[in-house]
Amino acid sequence: MTLVTLPGREWVQAVGPISGLELAVWEMDGPPDRADEVRVVVPPYVGAGPRLGRLAEVPHLELVQLLTAGYDDVLSVLPDGVQLANATGVHDASTAELAVALTLASLRDFPDFFAAQRDRTWLPSVFHHALADKRVLVLGYGSIGRAVAARLTPFEVQVTAVASRARAGDDLVRSVHGVDELPVLLPDHDVVIVIVPLSEHTAGLVDDAFLAAMPDGALLVNVARGGVVDTDALVRHAQAGRIRAALDVTDPEPLPGDHPLWVTPNVLITPHVGGTSTAFMPRAARLLQDQLGAYAAGRPLRNLVT
Amino acid sequence: MTLVTLPGREWVQAVGPISGLELAVWEMDGPPDRADEVRVVVPPYVGAGPRLGRLAEVPHLELVQLLTAGYDDVLSVLPDGVQLANATGVHDASTAELAVALTLASLRDFPDFFAAQRDRTWLPSVFHHALADKRVLVLGYGSIGRAVAARLTPFEVQVTAVASRARAGDDLVRSVHGVDELPVLLPDHDVVIVIVPLSEHTAGLVDDAFLAAMPDGALLVNVARGGVVDTDALVRHAQAGRIRAALDVTDPEPLPGDHPLWVTPNVLITPHVGGTSTAFMPRAARLLQDQLGAYAAGRPLRNLVT
Repeated sequence: MTLVTLPGREWVQAVGPISGLELAVWEMDGPPDRADEVRVVVPPYVGAGPRLGRLAEVPHLELVQLLTAGYDDVLSVLPDGVQLANATGVHDASTAELAVALTLASLRDFPDFFAAQRDRTWLPSVFHHALADKRVLVLGYGSIGRAVAARLTPFEVQVTAVASRARAGDDLVRSVHGVDELPVLLPDHDVVIVIVPLSEHTAGLVDDAFLAAMPDGALLVNVARGGVVDTDALVRHAQAGRIRAALDVTDPEPLPGDHPLWVTPNVLITPHVGGTSTAFMPRAARLLQDQLGAYAAGRPLRNLVT
Repeated sequence: MTLVTLPGREWVQAVGPISGLELAVWEMDGPPDRADEVRVVVPPYVGAGPRLGRLAEVPHLELVQLLTAGYDDVLSVLPDGVQLANATGVHDASTAELAVALTLASLRDFPDFFAAQRDRTWLPSVFHHALADKRVLVLGYGSIGRAVAARLTPFEVQVTAVASRARAGDDLVRSVHGVDELPVLLPDHDVVIVIVPLSEHTAGLVDDAFLAAMPDGALLVNVARGGVVDTDALVRHAQAGRIRAALDVTDPEPLPGDHPLWVTPNVLITPHVGGTSTAFMPRAARLLQDQLGAYAAGRPLRNLVT
């Protein structure tokens, strides 16, 4: 039997059994049992970073399967010749759902209503923004961007997809626009949902010029990484009443208590909870079942990043 | 030319011109101009109630077209022989959208995050409920119920539709269950979204037995009318930590400042804003264009309730 380590008893229960593999628990908080036999390691989802050095204690390691989409912190400690796979797809449902939830909560003024509830005050009937009829630009059209577009479609909106390069559309959008078209596209959109990966190309992409190109009263939703947005520029545009924002990620993160973003009007903040929901475990378990089944059978693996 | 009154200049601009009809403004706050020529009256959307008696000042009135779905307050003052049409369908997008927004905001603990934002506190990363994978029961499967189901479907949920009587399904659900099946269905659902009309059959439908049949931690969303829910029973179940609730309507309404519902844990309240959004005006204008066009051409009218 080939030994595979999973980061907790609950993972063994959720994933196993898998024909041809023995599943054991290793949370990487000490040396692995039966290190000589281990061929595959699945590190913990949260807080794995400092423990990843222990991968060197597994002499015959062949595959590291992450539960995160990001993998920068693993590359430097990955032993030579070991394959690395990430968890692309596992967080789509949870993150796309949060993007729509943030959009709706901001447009329909939920923070005002919840504050009024704390004051036991029934606010008078006035008209609020609806998502219906809005022109929504989804910036970043990978698997999460498509999941956002799928969830938006029944809300009677117009969805525009933008990716690094223009390409043909799919069943959700007629075409995918290139990021170079943003200056032309932004003035015609009421909502921009950002879900690009953070890279040298996207760091600070949402800068003063980007925000200035958005129409008055438009909403920026960020479920990507804080560094994609120039925080100072956003604070200026939001304080001026020009732009609304709903942010699950910030730069810096966590946001210090004295940061002006906390008290900027028209800004709504959730503390990076895009992926941490009940949607995670069953989808991660399905990925592990697929991957480990493929590994055991000698079939090609998904999501390889090395 | 046949004279039609609309409740404001903005309505004349949004609706007109319509061939064969003259559109005039009458907000019903005084006697109508050229009362002898008026054949159709569209009363104001908000606050029409006390003014409806002025319909008697229109001697040759043929049709009253409401902008609301409800029409109880018009029946008693409607002159003999005058047709009455309501605005079924106009509020579907706005109300269905709010139902999904309330569901997401409650499941993903938005009130906690917004309170933390007021305290400038970045909450630690813990797992929150997602809508994904939830079993959602839509109670009331008319046009708004179907609009709710359409919006829920891409969220990777299981949707069950319940109406007054069982019937065949549609493109969204395999079948529509009858309300008599609720005792069997409720224990297997994580979210119940209520959008039945208030009637002698539905008043107090969500009572102690209904709430007791819902599983621990289940969420009740009410975008129908407050009177469909037994408020005292709901407060008991929510205070016990058994049931979450997200309510756009309450009984009584508006909710008095000293009502226990305001401070019941796990209860989220918006002040009856289901229909009052930017989605209303364009959809109402389209209904008026259709109806008045049909009236002018002698074609059958929609939404007649008398």
